Amino acid sequence: MRDVLPDEVALRDWAMAQILAVYRRHGFVRIETPAVESLRLLLRSDGGENEKLIYRILKRGEKLAAADGAEDLADLGLRFDLTVPLVRYYAHHHARLPQPLKAIQIGPVWRAERPQQGRYRQFTQCDIDILGVASEVAEIELILATTEALAALGLKDLTVRINDRRLLGGLVAHCGFDPERAGSVFIALDKLDKIGRDGVAAELREAGHAAGAVDRLLDLLASSATPAALRGLLGARGDEGVWRGLQRILDTVETQAAGRFRLVFDATLVRGMGYYTGPIFEVQHGGSTSSIAGGGRYDRMIGKFIGRDVPATGFSIGFERVISILLERGPATEADGERVVLVFDETETALGPVLALARDLREQGKQVLLEARAKRLGKQLQDLEARGYRKIGVLGAGGAVEWREPRAGGAGETSA
Amino acid sequence: MRDVLPDEVALRDWAMAQILAVYRRHGFVRIETPAVESLRLLLRSDGGENEKLIYRILKRGEKLAAADGAEDLADLGLRFDLTVPLVRYYAHHHARLPQPLKAIQIGPVWRAERPQQGRYRQFTQCDIDILGVASEVAEIELILATTEALAALGLKDLTVRINDRRLLGGLVAHCGFDPERAGSVFIALDKLDKIGRDGVAAELREAGHAAGAVDRLLDLLASSATPAALRGLLGARGDEGVWRGLQRILDTVETQAAGRFRLVFDATLVRGMGYYTGPIFEVQHGGSTSSIAGGGRYDRMIGKFIGRDVPATGFSIGFERVISILLERGPATEADGERVVLVFDETETALGPVLALARDLREQGKQVLLEARAKRLGKQLQDLEARGYRKIGVLGAGGAVEWREPRAGGAGETSA
Repeated sequence: MRDVLPDEVALRDWAMAQILAVYRRHGFVRIETPAVESLRLLLRSDGGENEKLIYRILKRGEKLAAADGAEDLADLGLRFDLTVPLVRYYAHHHARLPQPLKAIQIGPVWRAERPQQGRYRQFTQCDIDILGVASEVAEIELILATTEALAALGLKDLTVRINDRRLLGGLVAHCGFDPERAGSVFIALDKLDKIGRDGVAAELREAGHAAGAVDRLLDLLASSATPAALRGLLGARGDEGVWRGLQRILDTVETQAAGRFRLVFDATLVRGMGYYTGPIFEVQHGGSTSSIAGGGRYDRMIGKFIGRDVPATGFSIGFERVISILLERGPATEADGERVVLVFDETETALGPVLALARDLREQGKQVLLEARAKRLGKQLQDLEARGYRKIGVLGAGGAVEWREPRAGGAGETSA
Repeated sequence: MRDVLPDEVALRDWAMAQILAVYRRHGFVRIETPAVESLRLLLRSDGGENEKLIYRILKRGEKLAAADGAEDLADLGLRFDLTVPLVRYYAHHHARLPQPLKAIQIGPVWRAERPQQGRYRQFTQCDIDILGVASEVAEIELILATTEALAALGLKDLTVRINDRRLLGGLVAHCGFDPERAGSVFIALDKLDKIGRDGVAAELREAGHAAGAVDRLLDLLASSATPAALRGLLGARGDEGVWRGLQRILDTVETQAAGRFRLVFDATLVRGMGYYTGPIFEVQHGGSTSSIAGGGRYDRMIGKFIGRDVPATGFSIGFERVISILLERGPATEADGERVVLVFDETETALGPVLALARDLREQGKQVLLEARAKRLGKQLQDLEARGYRKIGVLGAGGAVEWREPRAGGAGETSA
C-alpha cells in the first residue's frame, strides 16, 4: 500500500470526476458500501484466487477469547472487489433501489498480493453495473458509457473486443472437448496473449484434454473467425439467440461509435472470472495487449444470494492502469482554476489587505495560495515557479501588489 | 458500518465537491494515505481512547503461524483518524512536499465503537492541516477556509468559538490546581456542556483536586470572561505572546468574516485531544451546542516522529454530522445536469434513434436514463415521476418522441 503525493491525487481526482460525470449523464447513480464485509460473505463469492488474498480482521474482546483455533480468529474481512459487495447491497436494499439499477461504484479494494511493480495491495476499482436488464441494451449501454468515459480522459485509440461465453462453450464442445470441463479450457485459453499458442496447447494436453480437440480449437481460433463463419461452422450447436444478440451489439455499437473507437469480435476473448454467462468484453488502448477495462454478463450470480436470478451486466475500468497511462503522458489536466500565489510580509504588512485580495481572487474561481515572505525572496519565487505557479504577486508594506512574470524558459517552464 | 443509498451518495458527493473546491481555492492540495497502517504506528500516536478501538488485521501465513500469543496476532490496523497518517506521510515525504504543506484529507476511518444512533464504525473525516507555519496566519487561514466551506454547503448561522490551551493552563494554575495535573482538569472541563457545572465540579473533587481551586475556576469561567479581563486577572502568569496571538486572530477574522459568521472567545472551550499546544477552535451551527467542526494547533506532534518540531495546525469538519444536518433539510442540492428519461420499446423501436437522441441530450450536459417500456406504461411513468424525473420522453415505433409533463401536484411533486 502506498501514499499518493499531491500531484497524483489531483490527477486521480480529475480522472474520477470525468468518469463520474460521463456515467451520471448515462443515468447511472453512485452507491457506496463499507470497506469491511463479513468474512462468510467474502468466502462464498466465487472469487477464486482472490479469496486467498483477503485481509482478515481480528475478532475483539470476548469473541476473540472464545475463538476456536486459527481459522476462527476473524469474522470480518476487507473487500477484494466491488462485485461481491454490490450483490450483497442489491440483495439487501433492492426494494428501495431503482429498478433496473444502474450503479456506479468507485472505491478502494484490498488484496494481500506479493508486491510488484505497479501493483499495490490497496487499489481503486471503478465499476458500472446494470442489474435487472436481460436484453443486449445493457451491454450496449455499458460499452457506450465506458468508451465515452475513457475518451473523456483523453484516451483515444480504443479497441473494444467482444465475445460470448456461450459461443466459447459451443466451440469447445464442437472441437471435441468434454463440455463438463469447459471451465478449465477457458482458463488455459485466457493465457493465449501471455504464453502463446504452444503454451496453451501444452497446458491443455497436460490437463488431459484430447490432442485432436486442442489442435482443432486452436486452429479455429487462429483463423480469426468472423461471427458469421463460426455460425456456419457450429450449425445446430449454436444458439440462435446468442448470434442474434452478439450481432445486435456489434451493429448497434458500431453505428453509435461512429469511428470514435473500434469494436471487434474476438473469438479468443475469455476473461478470467468464472461467473460470466453471456457476452464478455474488454477495452485495449493503443498498441498494448493488456486491457484497461473489462466486463460481461453474469446472470446467475445474484440468484445465489437472493434465491431468484436477476440479469446482471458489468463493466470495470482498470483505474490504476488508466492512471499510470495518464501519468506517463505527464500532467495534461487543467487545474480547477488559475493558480495564484500572494507573497506577503508577516511582520510588516497588515494581514487584512492580503486576505481581502485573496478573497476577491477566489470569488473569481482562482486558487490562491498565501505564502509568508521568506528571507530570500528570489529563492522563494524560483521555488514557486518550479512548482508551476505562473502568477505570483508580492505585497509591499503598503498593501500594493507587484506581479512577477516568470522568466520564459525559466525554472518554472521545465517543471510545468 | 453501513451501505449508502444513491440519494445520500449524491448528497455526499455534492457536499464533498463543494468543500474540496473551497479548500483548493484556498491553496490546499489533497493528499491520500492507505486505509491500513502499521499497528505500531497507530499505537504510539497519543490517540487516547481511540487506540482501544482499532480494527486489527490478522497476520498471514508464516507470520501468523509464528505469532507469539494473542497480542502478536496482528501487525496492521485500520486507521482511526487522519492525523496520525498525515504525520507519518509528512515524516516520510516532506522533501517532496510543498513547504509549508497545506493538506486536504477526505476519507474513511474506522473505530470499533458500540453502534449507536447516527454513529457508524466506518465514517468519513474531512481535515485540512497546515504544516510549517508558526504564526497565527495558519489559524486565520484555517478558520476562513473552513467557515467558507461550511457556508458553501448552505450552512449559515455559524459560530466559531476560540480559546488557547496555554491560556487554559494559566487559568488552571492561577486557580490553584497542580499544573502537572492540568490534563485531567481539561478532560473534566470538556464535559461542561454535557454534565453541567455541578457534574464537572463533582468529577474534579472526586479526582482529588482542591475544592477551592475547583470553585474558583468554575466561577471564573461562568463569568464569561473576555480576553482583556482574563489578561488582567492572570497578570504575570499570562504569556504576552498568547494574548497578542489570540487578539490578532480575533481581530483579523472578525474583519474578514464581515458578518458571515460569528467569532467568539470562549474561555471554557477545551477540545478533547491531548496534543493541542496553542489556539483551539470549534464551529457550531444554529442553536446546537454540539460542534460541526473543530481543530487547533499541535506544534509538538510531528517532532515525535521526525525528531524536530514542525509547527502544525488543523481543522476537521465533522462530515457525518454535516451530512445529517443536510439530510434533515431534504434534498436541496442541484443535480449536475437536468435529469431526463427516454422510454423506448425494446422490441419495436430501433435502438439507434433513442441512442442518438440520448447522445445529443448528454452532449448538452443532461443526465439521460434509458428505460425499456414496461407492460404498464402508466405505472412506469408514475414510478419515474415519484423518483423525481420531471422530463420523460416516450419514443414511438417510428422514433418520434412524445414528451410527458408530470401532473402538477402529482406523485412526483411530493417526493421531489
